[in-house]
Amino acid sequence: ADVAAGRTKAVQCQACHGLDGISKQPDAPNLAGQNEDYLVKALNDFKTGARKNELMSTVVKPLSDTDIANLAAYYHSLRP
Amino acid sequence: ADVAAGRTKAVQCQACHGLDGISKQPDAPNLAGQNEDYLVKALNDFKTGARKNELMSTVVKPLSDTDIANLAAYYHSLRP
Repeated sequence: ADVAAGRTKAVQCQACHGLDGISKQPDAPNLAGQNEDYLVKALNDFKTGARKNELMSTVVKPLSDTDIANLAAYYHSLRP
Repeated sequence: ADVAAGRTKAVQCQACHGLDGISKQPDAPNLAGQNEDYLVKALNDFKTGARKNELMSTVVKPLSDTDIANLAAYYHSLRP
């Protein structure tokens, strides 16, 4: 996965999760240093509807498998 | 919330999430330092079925609101 490409994609995540992976909203999780496999699964679960969140379901819709892998690698790479 | 009581309850979480909040399984998230509100919501969502995971649905079933608040406070209190 491409961490730099993940960082570029993460610009759209920053209002809630921060570009540093530290949550900016009380109900959004910190993502910095999170397990990469877990992050891939979470994004895919929002995409398939297995996991439901109005905002997340909308934002993941246009993400490709590559985008998801890159985002997971980026947030995993950050120091919590 | 009672962090010490949360630590006692967390003994049953440690095989996956660690007593230190650092995941011991690739598909389980790190919880150390996670947002307390997010953790409460996640546990409640597993309890109500809004969020689905076979293992989590089983383990949260016996947890009271107090247990959930204490667990969230405990994991939030840990350094990631």
